[in-house]
Amino acid sequence: MAIIVHKYGGTSMGSPERIKNVARRVAKWHRAGHQMVVVVSAMSGETNRLIALAKEIMPNPDPRELDVVASTGEQVSIGLLAMALKVLGVEAVSFNGTQAGILTDSAYTKARIQSIDADVVKRELDAGKVVIVAGFQGRDAAGNVTTLGRGGSDTSGVAMAVALKAAECLIFTDVDGVYTTDPRIEPAARRLDVISFEEMLELASLGSKVLQIRSVEFAGKYHVPLRVLSSLTDPDIPVDVEAASGTLISFEEDPKMEKALVSGIACTRDESKITLVNVPDTPGIAYKILGPVAAHNIDVDMIVQNVGAQGTTDFTFTVPKGETERALKVIEEEVAPVCKPREVAVDKAIAKVSIVGIGMRSHAGVACRIFETLASEGINIQMIGTSEIKVSVVVEDKYMELAVRALHQAFGLAQDD
Amino acid sequence: MAIIVHKYGGTSMGSPERIKNVARRVAKWHRAGHQMVVVVSAMSGETNRLIALAKEIMPNPDPRELDVVASTGEQVSIGLLAMALKVLGVEAVSFNGTQAGILTDSAYTKARIQSIDADVVKRELDAGKVVIVAGFQGRDAAGNVTTLGRGGSDTSGVAMAVALKAAECLIFTDVDGVYTTDPRIEPAARRLDVISFEEMLELASLGSKVLQIRSVEFAGKYHVPLRVLSSLTDPDIPVDVEAASGTLISFEEDPKMEKALVSGIACTRDESKITLVNVPDTPGIAYKILGPVAAHNIDVDMIVQNVGAQGTTDFTFTVPKGETERALKVIEEEVAPVCKPREVAVDKAIAKVSIVGIGMRSHAGVACRIFETLASEGINIQMIGTSEIKVSVVVEDKYMELAVRALHQAFGLAQDD
Repeated sequence: MAIIVHKYGGTSMGSPERIKNVARRVAKWHRAGHQMVVVVSAMSGETNRLIALAKEIMPNPDPRELDVVASTGEQVSIGLLAMALKVLGVEAVSFNGTQAGILTDSAYTKARIQSIDADVVKRELDAGKVVIVAGFQGRDAAGNVTTLGRGGSDTSGVAMAVALKAAECLIFTDVDGVYTTDPRIEPAARRLDVISFEEMLELASLGSKVLQIRSVEFAGKYHVPLRVLSSLTDPDIPVDVEAASGTLISFEEDPKMEKALVSGIACTRDESKITLVNVPDTPGIAYKILGPVAAHNIDVDMIVQNVGAQGTTDFTFTVPKGETERALKVIEEEVAPVCKPREVAVDKAIAKVSIVGIGMRSHAGVACRIFETLASEGINIQMIGTSEIKVSVVVEDKYMELAVRALHQAFGLAQDD
Repeated sequence: MAIIVHKYGGTSMGSPERIKNVARRVAKWHRAGHQMVVVVSAMSGETNRLIALAKEIMPNPDPRELDVVASTGEQVSIGLLAMALKVLGVEAVSFNGTQAGILTDSAYTKARIQSIDADVVKRELDAGKVVIVAGFQGRDAAGNVTTLGRGGSDTSGVAMAVALKAAECLIFTDVDGVYTTDPRIEPAARRLDVISFEEMLELASLGSKVLQIRSVEFAGKYHVPLRVLSSLTDPDIPVDVEAASGTLISFEEDPKMEKALVSGIACTRDESKITLVNVPDTPGIAYKILGPVAAHNIDVDMIVQNVGAQGTTDFTFTVPKGETERALKVIEEEVAPVCKPREVAVDKAIAKVSIVGIGMRSHAGVACRIFETLASEGINIQMIGTSEIKVSVVVEDKYMELAVRALHQAFGLAQDD
C-alpha cells in the first residue's frame, strides 16, 4: 500500500460544503487502498482575518505572537475535515504542526522546516486512519508555534511526503494544472501534462502562482513527484483518472519534452526599475551600488549596465515593487554620496515576461525569435536577462498581455505536441 | 514579589479595544511589582461560531475534533493580548494549554485538569515577563488537545494559581462582584465585599452565573483566595484600590459574616418538576424511582415525598429542564412498569428560589421567616429543600421575581451591615 499525500488550499477548504467535497475525494482514495495523509490550509479569508485582527492591536505585529494567532486557521480546518471524514464512515485523526512533529527553525512568520518526526503519523496510518495535518505551521525546538509564511502549506505537504517516503504528493488547487501561460491572458493557453522540475522552478520564481517556490525546491531536493490538479472537479471521478490528471512535475528527462523548445511563458507586474544615470564606468561599480541594497535584504532581480560616453555608464536594476521606496532610500543615503549619479530614475510601469523551456539548452535562436516577435508588434525591450533555460525581457507594462499572446503564438504553444 | 493570576472572560476580551484595556490593567499590576499570569477566554461569540461551524459539518461533532476546533478561540486571544502588552512596552509571552503544561484527562469537551507542570511559566515569570495562558484547554497524556467545557476558563485560572502558589486569583468579569441577589430582579441588591467559600459554592450551584462551580470547588480544595471584580471599569485606577474591590471569596470565618443571617438569594428557572402520583408507600420506593434516572446520568435536584391515603404516596423531584423528555422516557420505560403510578405529571412552569447564609448554622427561624414572607405575598410553596447553609423553595415560575424581592427585603439584605 502506497502512502499518498494530498494537499488542499484555502479555496478548496473555503466552506463547509467544499470541506465535505474534500472529504469525499479523500475517502475515495482511502477506499482505493491508499494510506492517506492530507495537509490543509486555513479556510480562504481566515488567515487574512486573523492578521487584520492582530494589526488592529499591533500595527507591526510581534512575530512570535502573530504565529500563535495565524496558525489557528489551519487548526480549525484539520478538525473540520476530520469530522467530515467521520461522517462518511472513514476513521480520521487531525494533528496540528506541533502534534505532527514538524520541527522548524525559530524564524517566526517565515520558518523553515528542519525535520519531521513522522512516528505518530505513521502509527495512525498503520492503524488504518486517514491523518489530517495542519499546513503552514510547525514548532521550534523550544516548543514555540511557528509558521512557514504565505503559501507554506504547499511546503508542508511536500515535506510530509518526504518524511513518509510517499509515492506522490498531489497539490489540489483552484486551477487544474500548470499552463503554457496564464489562461486569463491567452485563452489558447494549454495545460501541460508534464513539466520538468527545473522548468517548474523557473516558472514559480517568475510569477506563476500555481506552486510556492519553496515547495518546488523541497520536492527537487528529495525527488518527490508532485502533481498539481483541481479540487473543484467532481470528487467522485475514479481514482485512476484523477491520478493521471493535472500536471506532473517530473524528475525524468522526458523524451517528449525534448521536442518542445519552450514550455511556458510567465509574466509579472510585481517589479519596478531603478536607473542610476551617469555613474563612473569603473571596476567594482556594480558592487558599490548593489552591495548596500543587498545589505538591507532587498531582492534585486534583473541587472543591466549600458556603457555610455566618456567613461560613464547607466546602471539599471529591478526590485520588488513593494520595496521601491526602501531601495531608493538606500540609494540616496548610501550609494549616491559615493557614486554621484547625475540622476536616479524610477519606473514602476514595467512588466517582466519570461520564456521558459528546457529545450533552450540545446537549441539556439530562442532569444532571437523573441526579439523578432516583439519588434513586429512594436514592443520595445527595456532589459534582457537570461539563464540556461529562460529568457526574461522587461517591457512597458501596458504591453504585457500583448507580448505574452504574441510569444505564445510564435512558439506554437497552443498546439498539441 | 507575589504571583497574581488574573482571569478575563470573553466579554472582557470581546474586541481589540477591550483587549487593549485588559493590557493596560495587566501592565499596571506588573509595574506595581507583581509577577503576573493572565488566563483568558476566547473573544465573546468566537467559541459559539466555531461550534456552529463544526455542527455544519457534523451535527453531533466528534468530541476530539471539536476540541481541536474550539480551542483555537483562546489561542487567538492569548496572542492578541501578548501583542497588546508589547505595545505598552511590557515583555509578555503567550502559551496555549499544551505549552503551559496543563495536563488533563481525555474526556474531550469536559476534561478535568489532573496536574500542571508550571516550570515553563515560572521560568518566564522569573525572566520578568507577563505570561498569558489560554483558558478552557489543556492536553491529555497522549498529546491530544482537550477542553474543559463551558466556563472552564475560570477553572484554568484557579488551577494556574494553585500550581504557581499565587497569592490571589482575580476573576475579572462583566459584573463587579457577587451580589445579595440578581440586580436585574432586585435593584436594591447589594454587592458583598466578602463571602465565605461555602456560600459561594452554594450560590454557584444554585444558578448564580458569576463563577463556574468547578472553579469554586478547585479554589476550595487548595484554599486559593478568589476575587470577582469588573473588567469594565477604568483600567487605570490604582492597584491597591482595585485589589480591594469586587467580592473576595474567603476561607476565613469572618466575624462580620457571623452577623449576617443570610448572604444571598439565588434563583433559577432551569428545572422542571416530575410527579409520580399514587405510588406504593413502601421502603425503597425512592430508589426504585430515582435509581433508573440516575443510571441515565440525569441530575436530580430536589426530592419530596408526600404520604397519601391508603398506603400510597406522591413522589416529586426536579431535573434540569433540558433533560425533562429524557427523564420521562426513563420513567415510562423502566419505572412505571414497576411502580405503577396512577399518573405521571410534569410541570415546567416552576422556579427555584434559594436563600444562602453561613449564619443559618447557628440561627433558627430562617425557614420560618421564608414561609411567612412568601405566605404574606400569596405565594404557594410547592417543594422545600434544605442544607446546612441553604433553604430552597420551588414556586410557580411567575412568582420568582416577587419572591426574590420579598425575601431580599425580609432579610434586610439591601442595608449595609
